[in-house]
Amino acid sequence: MLRTHSAGSLRAEHIGQTVTLSGWVDRRRDHGGVAFIDLRDASGIAQVVIRDEETAHPLRNEFVLKVTGVVSQRPEGNANPNLPTGEIELIAADVEVLNESAPLPFQVSTALADSETVGEEARLKYRYLDLRRPAQASALRLRSNVYKAIRDVLHAEDFTEVETPTLTRSTPEGARDFLVPARLSPGSWYALPQSPQLFKQLLMVGGVEKYFQIARCYRDEDFRADRQPEFTQLDIEMSFVDQEDVITLMESLIQAMWATIGVEVALPLPRMTYADAMAKYGSDKPDLRFGLELVDATAYFQDTPFRVFQAEYVGAVVMPGGASQPRKQLDAWQDWAKQRGARGLAYVLFNEDGSLGGPAAKNLSEAEQAGLAEFVGASAGDCVFFAAGATKESRALLGAARVEIGRRLGYLNPDEFAFSWVVDAPMFEPAADAVASGDVAVGAGAWTAVHHAFTGPKPEFQDTFDTDPGSALAYAYDIVCNGSELGGGSIRIHREDVQKRVFEVMGISDEQADEQFGFLLDAFKFGAPPHGGIALGMDRVLQHLTKTESIREVIAFPKSGNGFDPLTSAPAPITDAQRAEAGVDYEPEDEA
Amino acid sequence: MLRTHSAGSLRAEHIGQTVTLSGWVDRRRDHGGVAFIDLRDASGIAQVVIRDEETAHPLRNEFVLKVTGVVSQRPEGNANPNLPTGEIELIAADVEVLNESAPLPFQVSTALADSETVGEEARLKYRYLDLRRPAQASALRLRSNVYKAIRDVLHAEDFTEVETPTLTRSTPEGARDFLVPARLSPGSWYALPQSPQLFKQLLMVGGVEKYFQIARCYRDEDFRADRQPEFTQLDIEMSFVDQEDVITLMESLIQAMWATIGVEVALPLPRMTYADAMAKYGSDKPDLRFGLELVDATAYFQDTPFRVFQAEYVGAVVMPGGASQPRKQLDAWQDWAKQRGARGLAYVLFNEDGSLGGPAAKNLSEAEQAGLAEFVGASAGDCVFFAAGATKESRALLGAARVEIGRRLGYLNPDEFAFSWVVDAPMFEPAADAVASGDVAVGAGAWTAVHHAFTGPKPEFQDTFDTDPGSALAYAYDIVCNGSELGGGSIRIHREDVQKRVFEVMGISDEQADEQFGFLLDAFKFGAPPHGGIALGMDRVLQHLTKTESIREVIAFPKSGNGFDPLTSAPAPITDAQRAEAGVDYEPEDEA
Repeated sequence: MLRTHSAGSLRAEHIGQTVTLSGWVDRRRDHGGVAFIDLRDASGIAQVVIRDEETAHPLRNEFVLKVTGVVSQRPEGNANPNLPTGEIELIAADVEVLNESAPLPFQVSTALADSETVGEEARLKYRYLDLRRPAQASALRLRSNVYKAIRDVLHAEDFTEVETPTLTRSTPEGARDFLVPARLSPGSWYALPQSPQLFKQLLMVGGVEKYFQIARCYRDEDFRADRQPEFTQLDIEMSFVDQEDVITLMESLIQAMWATIGVEVALPLPRMTYADAMAKYGSDKPDLRFGLELVDATAYFQDTPFRVFQAEYVGAVVMPGGASQPRKQLDAWQDWAKQRGARGLAYVLFNEDGSLGGPAAKNLSEAEQAGLAEFVGASAGDCVFFAAGATKESRALLGAARVEIGRRLGYLNPDEFAFSWVVDAPMFEPAADAVASGDVAVGAGAWTAVHHAFTGPKPEFQDTFDTDPGSALAYAYDIVCNGSELGGGSIRIHREDVQKRVFEVMGISDEQADEQFGFLLDAFKFGAPPHGGIALGMDRVLQHLTKTESIREVIAFPKSGNGFDPLTSAPAPITDAQRAEAGVDYEPEDEA
Repeated sequence: MLRTHSAGSLRAEHIGQTVTLSGWVDRRRDHGGVAFIDLRDASGIAQVVIRDEETAHPLRNEFVLKVTGVVSQRPEGNANPNLPTGEIELIAADVEVLNESAPLPFQVSTALADSETVGEEARLKYRYLDLRRPAQASALRLRSNVYKAIRDVLHAEDFTEVETPTLTRSTPEGARDFLVPARLSPGSWYALPQSPQLFKQLLMVGGVEKYFQIARCYRDEDFRADRQPEFTQLDIEMSFVDQEDVITLMESLIQAMWATIGVEVALPLPRMTYADAMAKYGSDKPDLRFGLELVDATAYFQDTPFRVFQAEYVGAVVMPGGASQPRKQLDAWQDWAKQRGARGLAYVLFNEDGSLGGPAAKNLSEAEQAGLAEFVGASAGDCVFFAAGATKESRALLGAARVEIGRRLGYLNPDEFAFSWVVDAPMFEPAADAVASGDVAVGAGAWTAVHHAFTGPKPEFQDTFDTDPGSALAYAYDIVCNGSELGGGSIRIHREDVQKRVFEVMGISDEQADEQFGFLLDAFKFGAPPHGGIALGMDRVLQHLTKTESIREVIAFPKSGNGFDPLTSAPAPITDAQRAEAGVDYEPEDEA
């Protein structure tokens, strides 16, 4: 028996009992020949008093001790009201060192850790020490609690948790697959799934009706700070449902997840069309913790003498109090815009004295100047930024400016959670646009799917989506929180003829479709039910719940840049024998 | 709204209500111009009555329908007491065909499916149809229920569910790794984990104390009928525990899992030492649904004139009633033994008239013949099989004969579950023995670990395990059910010096240890707590719970032989571009 109690559970009611604790030396203080040790385990901390100097002498931070003794009341005035165990202390009768600790590369004591800044490389290399720090430990625990909350909701709704294969075929999600050579079929490879998309649809064809999985997914992308090669997604699919059913379920899940951090999310969540999101926020994942909506000033400037504003679109966003920014800051905004590929960011300052400042002002007509403040909703002391040009790019620039304004003005409160559904996105976008924005266009057509190739059209576009792809809206919905996309889903196509028409729009040939998704098209022949679902990025959700800057803070053993693990040094070279055995270099023999 | 009720939920209390159901045509019967359709959804079946011939005409099996109508009492004498919905029927007012179905490759109707035998290749290729059959659907659902039962127990015990990486480094479990080329580190590869062993130990060093995961694991083995390249394991690790703690927890999990099929498992489960298991059952995973223990007859035959029995070990197993086996069957036993690599299986028949039969009998001394029945516990009419030779091989042969006897005599009742812990296994075995029995010997030493290199010695062998490896017992425990191993675990090594001594016994050099497990040895330097755990093969558990012959019956999308998936045709060739991009053929440039 290594312990009778957990350290954090001791209270005044235990006074007089003999107990055994096991844990780590969080810190020690010495006072008149007596050692006071904060003994830490997963439950918390208890103070251990060791009066025997010889016993106490060798004990250093992070030694692992087993201590037996009597729980006693702390002497008058020595109670610590900040500690749940602060009324008591354990008078050690027997101390056993279960393990020693070498000096640490960085401190983990609960007393120090939060204030100490440790380089990320060291934290990842010694992740097992990093995880002893309270914030890191509680992030792991929170993920476990959130998963429990999810499962409680879904089991109550009679969902079946199903595991889908991870040694499988390429799924057409538009990113690169991780590949695994198949030793027993030399020359053939498995792909790790980018999502369980096809399998969950097959489960619907199989009559499962309500499926979920907390699924590991894999994308071989160029790792940015907030991407990991493997990630976890809550994956849900339901049969005989429409958009309303999926949204209602997901809202109850969001409520349950946020309840784990004591936040009560009011339902139903707001909804916004994709068109509105782009027009008002310049983004399909608007941050709704603050206003500052974009103002479409195209009509306002329709007869403008200012050449720059003679454009397809002119829009504005107000920065409250921005007129007092020093010239240097206004110049910095220009650099900011140029870094995003724009030529600059035109602005007008509404000075406190009623005059207009900034280089753009003098290019405007008198009437334009006179009505501007009212039109864009600016007050004296504000600054208004403008973007003019192609609608999509200009809105994107203003949307980014809006968030940057929010950041600078302290509007991005991490304790506030502003959710919204974004619905009615276009079904297709020009393939060239997708490629230009860094996505992969699946298929060789002029159009590619905004969501993915299995997303159905809204019912009213069922007949026309292929003759007029640019107008068709998808039966899809994204859930957004504080400017980031938590997840999204759609009502899927369940008819072979509709699926084939979508492939045609995307320029996916019959041959290619058959090769890549033939088994799904086959499945649609045999009574596939109407179905739809959603997927939620759990790493992103946990990042919101823990209010941390990086997704790596919520993953037990994250990779650093380029997919390298400083802890295990994975990936690593393989031996020639492994390579030969894996069949990587297999050459089929000529069949003469 | 695609349905107001699920089909299986309708009862007499719904009579008179207008409801909408959606589901599949399970079967149809026609009677006097009226179509009676069994409409099936995940919840069950309801009878739909369609009086309109034109509507009913095109409907065939597995068409997907949405039916609105009034729930009515079935006419006198037409109620079906075998069906939960058997009192009612739905009189269709509106029928919408949501999807059609081509003729099926095999029937899935609940009425037919159980009796129809379908080839496995077809079942896997059309797995989405196979899953509509009741046994298959309920196996998926049972797995979900079992996972819920597991999590309910572990959350109540304050365990944290943690996800460990699957793109990682080779783990030394003794099987071949699946490998994944790392595009961003050309020439380097990830390995898919054979188990989360090292990560769960690191979590203990990280202070998690109670960890679990239902983890996907990967072993690139030559697939036998009951192996899959990916499999699922319940993985548990705890700090500050001894064997008793882990066993107690696992017993409560087994009780909870078996409760999902209505079986009450009495606790505590029996325990047996490894030595006893080998002596009495010739196996470290004895089937305890029946007796027929092996009898050690070595001493009995110590002065035997029979040359064959002048051996290191002579053992016997009784086949009740086996004396009446025809000669052909007794010959078949010889073939059976030869297939297992033995020279044959000596036997003695105890004829009903008191005489002894079989070729071995006449080689025995008179005294041996006279006392034999009593010594081995045989009665008139029984047959006794003997094995003589090296102890290990002879016991293994008798153990297998014992199970074969059990099978032939109908003792292997799938509704009975006989559990046992097998404890006190040897810590090491000669590496040559491991290789001879098809395992991989990790390390280059004369000894290899029976469990794995991280298993601790029982405390009493802590000082001597490296000077006398053949005598040391491991602090390990396996859980066995009906002759198969459900899982196993151990109290781990938590001290660097002990771990290094184990590596030394196994002939793992400092350099190799450092290269492969350096990070674990490092972690042991910084206050690693005593810890231990267990892993349970969930596919095997589900196979017991569903009482099916094959592990493939309990996996949503299993692979067939050689790791091929007849549904998606994975694995598949990759393109030259994919190959180039993955960096498979990267050659480091000469650095001149």
